[in-house]
Amino acid sequence: MPPAYVEALGSVAAVLTTFCWIPQAVKVIRTRETRAISLTTQVALSVGVVLWLLYGILHVSWPLIGANAVTLVLLIVILAMKLRHG
Amino acid sequence: MPPAYVEALGSVAAVLTTFCWIPQAVKVIRTRETRAISLTTQVALSVGVVLWLLYGILHVSWPLIGANAVTLVLLIVILAMKLRHG
Repeated sequence: MPPAYVEALGSVAAVLTTFCWIPQAVKVIRTRETRAISLTTQVALSVGVVLWLLYGILHVSWPLIGANAVTLVLLIVILAMKLRHG
Repeated sequence: MPPAYVEALGSVAAVLTTFCWIPQAVKVIRTRETRAISLTTQVALSVGVVLWLLYGILHVSWPLIGANAVTLVLLIVILAMKLRHG
């Protein structure tokens, strides 16, 4: 596969795994229903994304910084709703 | 920060964002409760992880392949339970 195609594939992957959190954030805000969501998963995922963000900052990698900053904002919304509504 | 520390940070990030899915998978298997989980998020995330896995295969990057293969298995469990229990 030509290298440009491979990098395009990576970009689509990054967009999906970043913006996929929008529907989940919208859903918990709208319904206030969070029972099925694992708190442990949300905390571990959020801490992991903070570390990926630091890793991106230390490597001065703008794709890593951008993707993880957006993901983190959405995960914080979901985590806050989980902590509030149980 | 010494490069070895930066890479260790990245490894901890990868472990967290991979294995964080275990508690969510266990929770949905135990409770059969999936209402609060967004189907759109789970599908987009799973497709994104499939693309990251392909990207890892095309780059012959074993950390990417390993992390995304494990994540995908756990996400498929959660997605299957979501499709079954709504």
